[in-house]
Amino acid sequence: MSDLSARAELYLEVQQFYAAHMHALDSGEADLWAADFTEDGVFTPPSGPNVRGRADLATAVKNSSEQRARAGEQHRHWHGMVDVRTTGTGEIDVRCYALIIVTRRGEESSLKRACVCHDRMVRVAGRLQIREREVTRDDLAPTRGEVVPRPASS
Amino acid sequence: MSDLSARAELYLEVQQFYAAHMHALDSGEADLWAADFTEDGVFTPPSGPNVRGRADLATAVKNSSEQRARAGEQHRHWHGMVDVRTTGTGEIDVRCYALIIVTRRGEESSLKRACVCHDRMVRVAGRLQIREREVTRDDLAPTRGEVVPRPASS
Amino acid sequence: MSDLSARAELYLEVQQFYAAHMHALDSGEADLWAADFTEDGVFTPPSGPNVRGRADLATAVKNSSEQRARAGEQHRHWHGMVDVRTTGTGEIDVRCYALIIVTRRGEESSLKRACVCHDRMVRVAGRLQIREREVTRDDLAPTRGEVVPRPASS
Repeated sequence: MSDLSARAELYLEVQQFYAAHMHALDSGEADLWAADFTEDGVFTPPSGPNVRGRADLATAVKNSSEQRARAGEQHRHWHGMVDVRTTGTGEIDVRCYALIIVTRRGEESSLKRACVCHDRMVRVAGRLQIREREVTRDDLAPTRGEVVPRPASS
Repeated sequence: MSDLSARAELYLEVQQFYAAHMHALDSGEADLWAADFTEDGVFTPPSGPNVRGRADLATAVKNSSEQRARAGEQHRHWHGMVDVRTTGTGEIDVRCYALIIVTRRGEESSLKRACVCHDRMVRVAGRLQIREREVTRDDLAPTRGEVVPRPASS
Repeated sequence: MSDLSARAELYLEVQQFYAAHMHALDSGEADLWAADFTEDGVFTPPSGPNVRGRADLATAVKNSSEQRARAGEQHRHWHGMVDVRTTGTGEIDVRCYALIIVTRRGEESSLKRACVCHDRMVRVAGRLQIREREVTRDDLAPTRGEVVPRPASS
């Protein structure tokens, strides 16, 4: 298999992964969403403390899903401009843009946030899993590292 | 050909399909858009009655294109977070998010709607065609089935 | 390699290309962004004169990056509905939608513009490069050619 074929397949896998991952998140399927992280996966949110491990990740999503339900809001998380690289150690390094789109029942939808998501993925038993996720918000001052463009060759 | 190669190729096909499909829709090319459905394809919109068959589908799009032209509006339909599965019967089952972006001449663009699109596709003479489409709007109460996340394996 | 495999690989390449290209643009890495054009590449913007050649392209991006920094704005350029064709002469012809999303520090993000981007790409030393880019804005009257949908077969 050529390098390009391998990269095409990985790119497809990442896109499909994010699609199922975000459908799970926005439907409040917290455990399904958390299962996309490694057992000890870490999420570094734009503000607030890190969340570590599937159990805590699932709890965090359950809580925010309940908040949204009470507010009558449907959120949609939307990844795009997905830049996929493989590292020397075989990890998959993904940087992408992430929109959060909010709709209240009976109202027009609105774009709430533009973010950048940086995932470090590994392959576990053949499936992609997120080992580390860091999300930054465009509306907050860049207290952590900004996205730095990388040369086009992986 | 590996399973992964086949899935990568199908994923590409679906993305390319939606791109051409939406360019046709937003340019008012109603017949070209309707040809992406099977001859007896059915569209279940978020509200109002179903539309069945290419002729009626094309008519519906012609009417809404004329409305938009009179209103001086350009719409853009944008699919993302595309989740592609193949069913046991060989159909292709796609669930994705769909945005409608509206621009009036001389004004800033705005996000009008966030939707979920569920397509059941078949392959006819080698080409993908939509046999059934169901679209739900986030701003309406979920009177029909909501998107239910599915396990990551197809 | 089948035609479909080749198309899948090209589609992946274009998506990955745009991801890195836009991350570079939105991070103000003007030279990295300009290197995605051929040496004599031409950019036809929605308004104003054409920009020709990497040096002038980079200068234009540097200037607009500085403007945005002074205004405290982060822009995100987002391509979607990417329609990729190969021409008889071996060029790659891409038409896609392009959103510009703007965020001011401390404020909610907003969708500023919906555009259509038409790129003619060539392969130089194995890598894709843009030979001609034309961008039209939905909010301006169509003084140049509008996007015309093309048959689904390339």
